[in-house]
Amino acid sequence: MINKNLIDLEALSVDQINKLIRKAKRIMKSPSDYRHACDGKILATLFYEPSTRTQMSFQTAMLKLGGRTIGFDNPMNSSVAKGESLKDTISIVSGYADIIAMRHPVEGTAMAASLYSEVPLINCGDGGHLHPTQTLTDIITLSCEKGRLDHLKIGVCGDLLNGRTVHSLIKTLAKYEGNSFVLISTKELSIPLYIIDILEKNGCPYEISHSLSDAIVDLDMLYMTRIQRERFKSEEDYEAQKYVFVLDREKLDKAREDMIILHPLPRVNEITVDIDDDPRALYFKQAQYGMFGRMALILLLLQDEDFVIESRDFEISPHRCSNPKCVTQSEAYLPNLSYRKLGMQMCDFCDKRID
Amino acid sequence: MINKNLIDLEALSVDQINKLIRKAKRIMKSPSDYRHACDGKILATLFYEPSTRTQMSFQTAMLKLGGRTIGFDNPMNSSVAKGESLKDTISIVSGYADIIAMRHPVEGTAMAASLYSEVPLINCGDGGHLHPTQTLTDIITLSCEKGRLDHLKIGVCGDLLNGRTVHSLIKTLAKYEGNSFVLISTKELSIPLYIIDILEKNGCPYEISHSLSDAIVDLDMLYMTRIQRERFKSEEDYEAQKYVFVLDREKLDKAREDMIILHPLPRVNEITVDIDDDPRALYFKQAQYGMFGRMALILLLLQDEDFVIESRDFEISPHRCSNPKCVTQSEAYLPNLSYRKLGMQMCDFCDKRID
Amino acid sequence: MINKNLIDLEALSVDQINKLIRKAKRIMKSPSDYRHACDGKILATLFYEPSTRTQMSFQTAMLKLGGRTIGFDNPMNSSVAKGESLKDTISIVSGYADIIAMRHPVEGTAMAASLYSEVPLINCGDGGHLHPTQTLTDIITLSCEKGRLDHLKIGVCGDLLNGRTVHSLIKTLAKYEGNSFVLISTKELSIPLYIIDILEKNGCPYEISHSLSDAIVDLDMLYMTRIQRERFKSEEDYEAQKYVFVLDREKLDKAREDMIILHPLPRVNEITVDIDDDPRALYFKQAQYGMFGRMALILLLLQDEDFVIESRDFEISPHRCSNPKCVTQSEAYLPNLSYRKLGMQMCDFCDKRID
Repeated sequence: MINKNLIDLEALSVDQINKLIRKAKRIMKSPSDYRHACDGKILATLFYEPSTRTQMSFQTAMLKLGGRTIGFDNPMNSSVAKGESLKDTISIVSGYADIIAMRHPVEGTAMAASLYSEVPLINCGDGGHLHPTQTLTDIITLSCEKGRLDHLKIGVCGDLLNGRTVHSLIKTLAKYEGNSFVLISTKELSIPLYIIDILEKNGCPYEISHSLSDAIVDLDMLYMTRIQRERFKSEEDYEAQKYVFVLDREKLDKAREDMIILHPLPRVNEITVDIDDDPRALYFKQAQYGMFGRMALILLLLQDEDFVIESRDFEISPHRCSNPKCVTQSEAYLPNLSYRKLGMQMCDFCDKRID
Repeated sequence: MINKNLIDLEALSVDQINKLIRKAKRIMKSPSDYRHACDGKILATLFYEPSTRTQMSFQTAMLKLGGRTIGFDNPMNSSVAKGESLKDTISIVSGYADIIAMRHPVEGTAMAASLYSEVPLINCGDGGHLHPTQTLTDIITLSCEKGRLDHLKIGVCGDLLNGRTVHSLIKTLAKYEGNSFVLISTKELSIPLYIIDILEKNGCPYEISHSLSDAIVDLDMLYMTRIQRERFKSEEDYEAQKYVFVLDREKLDKAREDMIILHPLPRVNEITVDIDDDPRALYFKQAQYGMFGRMALILLLLQDEDFVIESRDFEISPHRCSNPKCVTQSEAYLPNLSYRKLGMQMCDFCDKRID
Repeated sequence: MINKNLIDLEALSVDQINKLIRKAKRIMKSPSDYRHACDGKILATLFYEPSTRTQMSFQTAMLKLGGRTIGFDNPMNSSVAKGESLKDTISIVSGYADIIAMRHPVEGTAMAASLYSEVPLINCGDGGHLHPTQTLTDIITLSCEKGRLDHLKIGVCGDLLNGRTVHSLIKTLAKYEGNSFVLISTKELSIPLYIIDILEKNGCPYEISHSLSDAIVDLDMLYMTRIQRERFKSEEDYEAQKYVFVLDREKLDKAREDMIILHPLPRVNEITVDIDDDPRALYFKQAQYGMFGRMALILLLLQDEDFVIESRDFEISPHRCSNPKCVTQSEAYLPNLSYRKLGMQMCDFCDKRID
């Protein structure tokens, strides 16, 4: 079967990402040309955990293309509460809808669902694992606002250890030429080694910084994320460092005039409200770019025969994935799909190593 | 007032059922002819208890006809939580919508609501009482897949005592010529006597079986339903019989090649997952047939002046219905509507005998 | 910035109210002329507390204009549950939608939201504070059914102390010539003095009554509201008076044949069900008028450049509003906006005095 499911942005080639961005820009330029592009088509938004912003973004995208939407936003209101399997739900919904956008608290669920869907399926977040349309949002914003995705100096700030959006953004931008990175966090929340490996393999210069104030001065883009209080080593650590990674007027004054600030949202207090009106603060505009990106994605998945997503080679592992957060734990009928990476057996659903 | 409410499938004549099936088939054949059939019309889906599948099926049906939908899926979010009566809610909603699809946990609620609705109202399930569009789904599937609704050998398996979908299906198919039935269940969960009476009155041959394995061999259609663990007489009974009524590969291998398997869904474990890909397993396709059936129903109720549903003769009983699950218990303003059947006084809402 | 937000009906001039009513009447007369008036436009209904009736009314209004809707009806399903500020939510949603309809349990929230919205915003209720489209509904009903908004004798009955819909209705009708009022309630639940002031300033005759039975005889319109049991001084008071303010057949028989009965709904038991079919009982039809009023409002806000709403002069108060129910308590970034009234400093969000 032709793969039209967007589970992981990594599955897209640079050409495909560029095509998505070009399509999004064309839609922004003359949205009325696309007002009937999806007439008669239905998007199902299956949100097994609430995410108002992402769900409204997808709904708006489909409505602006002339399509319509069905779906739910509350696991307690769904048939799941009656014990229906993911497979059965997807089998039925893919008989109603032309395309599915799905969010689920369990890792690997979107991948699992795509096995049983007759229609394209988009991962809108599967636990702490992947959220490809967030990264799509980020790079469309970058491309539109900076005019390019290469030769940029990118700062990422906050919880770099646990932030899936940061990892995905770095992996994507590392594929473009001449980008360099400044990784700004506490020591305890440093970027994982496998991301450093990717940077080195792609020949991307990077610096590690423990001070947003110092690092901000010559960035093209600053990507802010939140550090949760409980991530600090101790209460003293938190008190000592809590303002170090907060973007405020004082720090922003050190930045270049053409730097842009992005944030995956929701913001809590890591960006002070008083800089929201600064022209460099693009995190709200970013949400609008995201909507156009989702319009482009829906169009390419539904209507562009050449936009086929590469499928990973897989095999059946003799062992079940042991990650307690993996969808294979709750959906017993799933096969032990796995793939090889650096000589290791990896779970095809959650991308964790199978021992 | 002309009755355009579908509360009970029994109220339809065989001609009307056949008309519905023909309409559904025409829609399936060229759905694009119907893409604007309900332009400007609004369907309200009032789901006082969640049923994602049924609600999405109705929403999709209306959207594919060019109409739009409003409604709710959560009793706690509705005005009911503020103590509004059913009458008031329906009076208001029927001022907004052109047609209403309603589900409610209390028996007789759809019938009660139809008394106050200015627009056609469809019963999408009223407690354990009636669910006419499920049976509509079943017979459209049967008609499309077997080419006829008569001269069929029908097996029904599972909890035949409590399964409202099974009773409704048998009552409907008994009206067609030459059908015979195999009733497969434990002794404790045998079909109620009044269904046997209907079979005998209609001259339908029937067999009683306690073994799915034996009964499956010469069926045209097998209708599977779930037996809940707590329905067995004892834990030993459950352990001894739990696999007897599960459809698996081994039992299916004994069936004819042209037998079809239906299930009202959700399925729990009464059909093993490994037969889902068997061409005879039609329970997911059945959900799609259901959507087309609902499209046909909406069209006939909204646009076919000849499609009038027969109203039962009723009288006002001096006694209130005493069924604790009946809507007359909670909605005090409802009159004691009743009808006569076999010399008994029956509640017009829940169809239980009024003493 | 041009003000296109309807937060308080008081901000509209009599000319603007009359324009709204004329537009609503034109839509009622030929709704099909407006079927594509908002093609391609999106209404976001942000309901931070459930109100099925109001939300469905707005959704229906937008759908009947050819537009589409996004939104939520459950605070627990929204990003708010993740600690997102009102400002951030509105900043994002106003990037998706063309117009916003918002309900919130906290006073002043709609006003606060309008500061950050790029698109017109309609207050659908902010706690016990304001609910302008309810009053719009009331006066459209009155205008359509009585043919005028002036020279009417208006009875208002129930909890006149706490009923925001009653206060708003009186303030609006006091602007029209020749209206007189009968204020029917227990002594404890009498109308607040500031409403009496408004009546006197506008030269409107008024009477105070403690008997619905006496007061009903020569009214043009009776506006019923509910008295909650806990509002009575004591249990004896409740028992003694509970039927005094209930509209039933006996009291209605004393009223004029051309009197009309309105109610903001939901009704509990302050109007007995047996008069629902009386031609004077217009509370269900009123809901339909409300929908047409909302269609008119959406159209004027989106498409009529002359329909600009007057902004109040404001200043920044040195003190924070101390009303514990005010939005300034929970949204820390809000400025201390205030205005002067009768020499006092009033909070621009909740309209309470700032000490």
